[in-house]
Amino acid sequence: MREEYIRPWEKNIRSVVPYVPGEQPREKDVIKLNTNENPFPPAPGVEKVLKNMDTDSLRLYPDPTIGLLVEEIAKFYQVEKEQVFVGVGSDDVLAMAYLTFFNSDKPILFPDITYSFYPVWCDLYRIPYETPALDEEFRLVKEDYYKDNGGIIIANPNAPTSIYESISTIEDIVAHNTNSVVIIDEAYIDFAGESALSLIDKYDNLLVVQTFSKSRSMAGMRIGFAMGNKKLIKALNDVKYSFNSYTLNQAAILAGVEAIKDKQYFKEGINKLIEIRKEAEKSLKELGFDFPASGANFLFVTHKTIPAKKLYEVLKENNIYVRYFDLPRISNYLRVTIGSKEQMDKLFEFLNQYINNK
Amino acid sequence: MREEYIRPWEKNIRSVVPYVPGEQPREKDVIKLNTNENPFPPAPGVEKVLKNMDTDSLRLYPDPTIGLLVEEIAKFYQVEKEQVFVGVGSDDVLAMAYLTFFNSDKPILFPDITYSFYPVWCDLYRIPYETPALDEEFRLVKEDYYKDNGGIIIANPNAPTSIYESISTIEDIVAHNTNSVVIIDEAYIDFAGESALSLIDKYDNLLVVQTFSKSRSMAGMRIGFAMGNKKLIKALNDVKYSFNSYTLNQAAILAGVEAIKDKQYFKEGINKLIEIRKEAEKSLKELGFDFPASGANFLFVTHKTIPAKKLYEVLKENNIYVRYFDLPRISNYLRVTIGSKEQMDKLFEFLNQYINNK
Repeated sequence: MREEYIRPWEKNIRSVVPYVPGEQPREKDVIKLNTNENPFPPAPGVEKVLKNMDTDSLRLYPDPTIGLLVEEIAKFYQVEKEQVFVGVGSDDVLAMAYLTFFNSDKPILFPDITYSFYPVWCDLYRIPYETPALDEEFRLVKEDYYKDNGGIIIANPNAPTSIYESISTIEDIVAHNTNSVVIIDEAYIDFAGESALSLIDKYDNLLVVQTFSKSRSMAGMRIGFAMGNKKLIKALNDVKYSFNSYTLNQAAILAGVEAIKDKQYFKEGINKLIEIRKEAEKSLKELGFDFPASGANFLFVTHKTIPAKKLYEVLKENNIYVRYFDLPRISNYLRVTIGSKEQMDKLFEFLNQYINNK
Repeated sequence: MREEYIRPWEKNIRSVVPYVPGEQPREKDVIKLNTNENPFPPAPGVEKVLKNMDTDSLRLYPDPTIGLLVEEIAKFYQVEKEQVFVGVGSDDVLAMAYLTFFNSDKPILFPDITYSFYPVWCDLYRIPYETPALDEEFRLVKEDYYKDNGGIIIANPNAPTSIYESISTIEDIVAHNTNSVVIIDEAYIDFAGESALSLIDKYDNLLVVQTFSKSRSMAGMRIGFAMGNKKLIKALNDVKYSFNSYTLNQAAILAGVEAIKDKQYFKEGINKLIEIRKEAEKSLKELGFDFPASGANFLFVTHKTIPAKKLYEVLKENNIYVRYFDLPRISNYLRVTIGSKEQMDKLFEFLNQYINNK
């Protein structure tokens, strides 16, 4: 009989609940609407700059200040470059922000239904937390955040609900919490409305986090960034430099600059995506789906008769991947990424046939 | 009179001593021998694969398992792919290893003179540590590590001393500490001798960390990796997935595969570098320098009459950058990276003139 002996060093391993990323099927004929990737390619300048990259210079460390990209982001958002922090995707930026700012003994606050990494980082860094419930319609109850806390993080638009809360709701929360750092995670903001960026000069405790993964079609390059007052950004950079001075590689820096420079391509892409989202909303309604108004590049849908889990499985069998969360309150919903026109046509072709033949 | 008011949220900022990376002069005519970069370009396959990269696919997340690169590393080192963990440079891998394995209340151990990030990560994660002194010749005193501890990390070859300790010394330390995780940080091993990799099947508490930044000329791409038994690697992956599932970008994965595939280019590059190092040792001796035998792509030199700090400054004034550490015991030493033949010729041209005219 084999005995499983636990070695002493194993007892000191940090225990975490591993995050399960969305399925990444590698087959080519899959309709992949499960990880909120953008259906359009990055700005044309990205291809050009990568093809012309001086690969010999890869022998050198990249610029630890990520200067070129920080400057271009600052220019785009009309802030100072000391107000911009860049990391390896917004997950990296957010985790770094947790480590930097959430060091109180008081719990940090975030909604019960939101991005699944928020509690995971708390566990990882042993940060206490509380999760006030969203209301029945998945809306933020701002008064729940008017109490003593060690920090606040709110995704706006929220994931996976897709709901965008108005800037005045966000401002109320920030204004009621000037004693702690409030992080607004705006991964999907470009598909929604006004960013909390307009508030960073008024509130020095506000950190706004965004990403190149969604509206800039660069999930594969891993670029996220934070904007806030200079003290917040300096604190983030201090922790970053103490952790790993050289994070973004040379290719990501160059590609990022090109992606953010091309304002017209950016705007057109967003408009095209919102157009496809509108059509999808119409088709879904006709098929008996219900969903909140989306401020994101995905829809959070529930069907009046077909259980979400069943639908998820049937779609998957037909090579259409959407996201299903087997979690309290949302287990009858699917998160469906807005894909290209062609992908959505195939989705609806299947749904029409499946639902109308039931 | 202006009063500096400390806001309540500022009190919860994690305080760190920021690491100061080596100077990164951007002027083109600088002889840069200060950050241990490789003078040769990456393997030719790297340029090719980046030029042919499908940039449209950057809209998609990279493979979170970094499968292609993990497999290629496993193949190169003849280990199983479950024995390989990949991160954003070895700093990322090491910091993740600290967070994963060093969770005891007992202090972790590392030498007093070693890589400057080791104590910084301890401060960041609030890990207690002790730093047994290297002997007068900067050699490891292995008996200092035969005591109760929460983990051990040893750079071999060590930085900034360049000294390689024999595999039997390393094995003695690992064998005396089977109750804690022992990390051997082998950033420079390919310029030295046998890797501790040969011991990972014998000792399940041994983690070997290496990098693409030195011997594979890819500092600009940020790729580091760890090898060890499957339990150690799984624990690292669990923490990674809980932190940021998608770390290496698409470009780094593809470039990494090409860099490790080209065995011949790799070997030739190392041989060429060791050849230049031999010549440099000869020239330095003639100029009155002393230094330990190097197992790295740099030399750790002291001059019999000229103070290191003075020399550092004079070299810098002449656009030659080397590394000076204003630290106890090593403040009369310079760390000089082995550059290209041309760079070294210019260094010695200057040194000959400067020292002989004094």
